Amino acid sequence: MSEAVTTRKVVKVRGDQRELADSLVVEEPMEIRLDGTALAVVMRTPGSDADLALGFAITEGIITTPDAIAEVSDLGEGRWNLTTSDAVDVDPSQFQRNFYSTSSCGVCGKASIDAIRITGAKPPEGPVVDVDTVLGLPPRLLESQEAFQSTGALHAAAAFDAEGAILAVREDVGRHNAVDKLVGHLASQRWPLEPLGLMVSGRISFEITQKAAVAGISLICGVSAASSLAVDLADEFGMTVVGFLRGEGFTLYAGGQRIRDLELSS
Amino acid sequence: MSEAVTTRKVVKVRGDQRELADSLVVEEPMEIRLDGTALAVVMRTPGSDADLALGFAITEGIITTPDAIAEVSDLGEGRWNLTTSDAVDVDPSQFQRNFYSTSSCGVCGKASIDAIRITGAKPPEGPVVDVDTVLGLPPRLLESQEAFQSTGALHAAAAFDAEGAILAVREDVGRHNAVDKLVGHLASQRWPLEPLGLMVSGRISFEITQKAAVAGISLICGVSAASSLAVDLADEFGMTVVGFLRGEGFTLYAGGQRIRDLELSS
Repeated sequence: MSEAVTTRKVVKVRGDQRELADSLVVEEPMEIRLDGTALAVVMRTPGSDADLALGFAITEGIITTPDAIAEVSDLGEGRWNLTTSDAVDVDPSQFQRNFYSTSSCGVCGKASIDAIRITGAKPPEGPVVDVDTVLGLPPRLLESQEAFQSTGALHAAAAFDAEGAILAVREDVGRHNAVDKLVGHLASQRWPLEPLGLMVSGRISFEITQKAAVAGISLICGVSAASSLAVDLADEFGMTVVGFLRGEGFTLYAGGQRIRDLELSS
Repeated sequence: MSEAVTTRKVVKVRGDQRELADSLVVEEPMEIRLDGTALAVVMRTPGSDADLALGFAITEGIITTPDAIAEVSDLGEGRWNLTTSDAVDVDPSQFQRNFYSTSSCGVCGKASIDAIRITGAKPPEGPVVDVDTVLGLPPRLLESQEAFQSTGALHAAAAFDAEGAILAVREDVGRHNAVDKLVGHLASQRWPLEPLGLMVSGRISFEITQKAAVAGISLICGVSAASSLAVDLADEFGMTVVGFLRGEGFTLYAGGQRIRDLELSS
């Protein structure tokens, strides 16, 4: 198995079938340094790390040719250093402001988990929903999306109650923005939020899960996969994460206590 | 038409059909200020901007309750200010380092376009490809993706030549990382890159297009939509952008000179 994947026990639900399975998901922070100075922290899938460090430096305009880098070194624990060639004069400090926390990561994964722990945020116990309610979310979300049907370009985030009714939907070209718009809308009406679920049209990343945790939302459903760090966070805070929610099935990554009728048939 | 959409002329290709059409795509920078101090620039879809500003402040832990914000004001030109309540003591400067350039934006859109113009980067004229070559890219990319088939979680970026042969593929949980890994890999072998195309498994955002421009890649194809700012950038630099590349068709957003057989039948 390559370093790009990590195994995690999940429950796969398809119609009346329940199956314990392994899922391969991964998302980990990587720090890119230039001559020893931290330049950026990106949430990435491990593998081709040296390529990522070099490519980032090129496509972000930090260097103009690969020759500017004499060596790409693995410092361990997700830290990589780019050593500039003697002939090249680059001042790392000029880039710090622009690139620190790029990649929609905000802050490094583990540090963020600690930060949330410190705030004492504890997601509510509810809602508890039926399997059929979960399965009914994607078509309900699609009905509620206006712009999506014309461009296909927008991500959606929706709040739903224990019966699966869509309470509000917000869309954006960015997944995180859609969640922020939704939370902002809900928070301007009531705070703390009542126990509700969050449905997203895309992938469940660490940051989506982090945003939900901070907003006090304990149940997250998504059309695509959940990342390993998102599931770590959900486990830590007792949240529920449902991914690959499409058609007749979904994958439960964490927090089965909020889904009724999850008894395994095998 | 809501402010969330903007119209652009595109060519829709489906089998032998060519149709001039309107497409609705949008991505614009928004600056979020806290008591007048710039806190973050996010690339977002206009609409629900006040919700986005408030939600961002909540989910990023800048405030702990919506009451902390007395007013959300539109300052014009994509700038929004959060005015804190008298009772709340928040120091905006403590967040600047962490949030500036969050949302995988790096720097604000128009400023970035100017920055690229200054570097004098000019994408190469080639490659020029057939319509059938373009249509054949998604299945070839899928064949080349290993991890994708097991988790479905990863984005892919591939380089292809004028005949549509896949030269290299890199995958990552983040779309931008996949492109950076690919560019880093290619750049470590040859620089400048030979004329080649970039195929991405997802959406063509401003930043993807920006990264391609800086790397000297003039042809970008993607499975999903291209954003308005990505198309602006492509127009400015004479790049080609092909989106919604699936099955029998695609949408040409910019740069038809690199696609043969694009004569309109109507």
